Amino acid sequence: MNFEVTILGSGAAVPTLRRNPTSQYVVCNDRHILIDCGEGTQMQIRNYGIRFQRLSHILISHLHGDHFFGLVGLLSTMHLMGRDKGITVYGPTELESIIKSQLEIGGAKLDFDLQFIATDPKNPQLIFEDNLIEIHSFPLKHRIPTTGFLIREKTKEFNLNSEAIKESGLKIEHFHLLKKGQDILTEDGQLYSCKDFTFPPKPSYSYAFCSDTKYDISIVPFVKDVSVLYHEATFTNKDSERAKATFHSTAAQAADIAKRANVGKLYLGHLSARYESTAFHLSEAAELFDKTEVVEDGMKFLVSA
Amino acid sequence: MNFEVTILGSGAAVPTLRRNPTSQYVVCNDRHILIDCGEGTQMQIRNYGIRFQRLSHILISHLHGDHFFGLVGLLSTMHLMGRDKGITVYGPTELESIIKSQLEIGGAKLDFDLQFIATDPKNPQLIFEDNLIEIHSFPLKHRIPTTGFLIREKTKEFNLNSEAIKESGLKIEHFHLLKKGQDILTEDGQLYSCKDFTFPPKPSYSYAFCSDTKYDISIVPFVKDVSVLYHEATFTNKDSERAKATFHSTAAQAADIAKRANVGKLYLGHLSARYESTAFHLSEAAELFDKTEVVEDGMKFLVSA
Repeated sequence: MNFEVTILGSGAAVPTLRRNPTSQYVVCNDRHILIDCGEGTQMQIRNYGIRFQRLSHILISHLHGDHFFGLVGLLSTMHLMGRDKGITVYGPTELESIIKSQLEIGGAKLDFDLQFIATDPKNPQLIFEDNLIEIHSFPLKHRIPTTGFLIREKTKEFNLNSEAIKESGLKIEHFHLLKKGQDILTEDGQLYSCKDFTFPPKPSYSYAFCSDTKYDISIVPFVKDVSVLYHEATFTNKDSERAKATFHSTAAQAADIAKRANVGKLYLGHLSARYESTAFHLSEAAELFDKTEVVEDGMKFLVSA
Repeated sequence: MNFEVTILGSGAAVPTLRRNPTSQYVVCNDRHILIDCGEGTQMQIRNYGIRFQRLSHILISHLHGDHFFGLVGLLSTMHLMGRDKGITVYGPTELESIIKSQLEIGGAKLDFDLQFIATDPKNPQLIFEDNLIEIHSFPLKHRIPTTGFLIREKTKEFNLNSEAIKESGLKIEHFHLLKKGQDILTEDGQLYSCKDFTFPPKPSYSYAFCSDTKYDISIVPFVKDVSVLYHEATFTNKDSERAKATFHSTAAQAADIAKRANVGKLYLGHLSARYESTAFHLSEAAELFDKTEVVEDGMKFLVSA
């Protein structure tokens, strides 16, 4: 199944010509998820040819403007474009009244159902699940209440070994049990071991999003072993004092988290407008964790790679 | 003196790849004024190479998102870029608490002085003046309280006729009175008529901004004889019913206002995303008022032309 991330905004608080404020579009098993929605996100969605009416979940990490100032405009555009399918927004408690009051002041009433689910900035939480995916939030350490998000494929089904099944006497009604990894005991007392009639499930992939946060090893358990970690890297080593003062991370600190968490790959973003080049971010991170890239607006990458 | 408008956003509620939501940058006698500030305005300011720290006045017409969702982000960026010079924001009463609450929730405290002046949606009002310019607001008719704005150069000084003065016996201390158009009566009873010693002042130009509004001839007196009128033209004739229902105008209605008000030139904007071409806007307006243009993002025009 597809599991892909498109970077809509890779910049920090001050947007530049090259980097919009934070937003990412994640497609996971045909679930269409937006993470953060900085100013201009709806234009970026259009720029990159994404069909925004497909979005079903919007996750907002925290209430700094560069992470949510595009949200009400996006919802409003969805409404004006004729949306009738509901949408769920997850974010800090106060976000609900911000959305409501801005729509109200503008005299707008959405023609679709907007469900709001408050995230918990203190504890990890399963905020959504269906038959294929799970979305979790987990606490980050920033100047205001902030959460990261983890999108995880559920354990996939075992694949039937049709060759083996053909000669076994197993029937169609047994197949869904085998797919779930169960052994079969038939009425006549025959035991069929799942492993003899299936191939192992394909691997399940996972994507964790950490922005914004100070360097904090307490987040390691939440992102342990994920396939891909996105971690903010607002600063480089020479500005590490500034990182500390503003509750942000350096590229090296992000790499340290990636290494401790044994992630498959690390993507760095939320780069401060002060840097012309990404060279130091990359080299400083790679010293600790070499499977690192810096994101750019418009970049796409597979989580299931 | 310079009097120039740059269009930062020419679209309506739904932004497109070509048209950002409404915003205009007006330079009038070295006063730097932003009118409306739709989502993405700070990026457009950057796109078009405008030095946004020069802005001293921000005028917000009404609280539909496509006219102000970029404001708090812009103020925040000004702060992060080290602004210390104050700024004045003019707009509907509720805007003040929106700005304050969004900054507060984000934990931001601006390092510059932000003065807020509420506009009156029911009566015309002089909202700013100095020695060179005046800014007025005036009521428009839209679904929510809305004002237009008029930026007007004050009557300029008479220009001294140095040839005539040289042989007259007039002294330096008389010059500032002549510049103001006053006749001079000297202590020895001699009368000097201003018109004999000056050339007439250069013309004073004026720019009126009307967005959003239904067709309403009661606004004609407010924009009477302006050099340049910007008037919204969300729709064309074929969608005139929709214009009526949404309290917007057609291009022809904007032209009718321009004609009644005897303006120098008409610019049309706030075009609905439904139109691929501007041809009908232009032709339908030109039937009534031929000095008409349709604005595009990035367009610049002189008011003092």
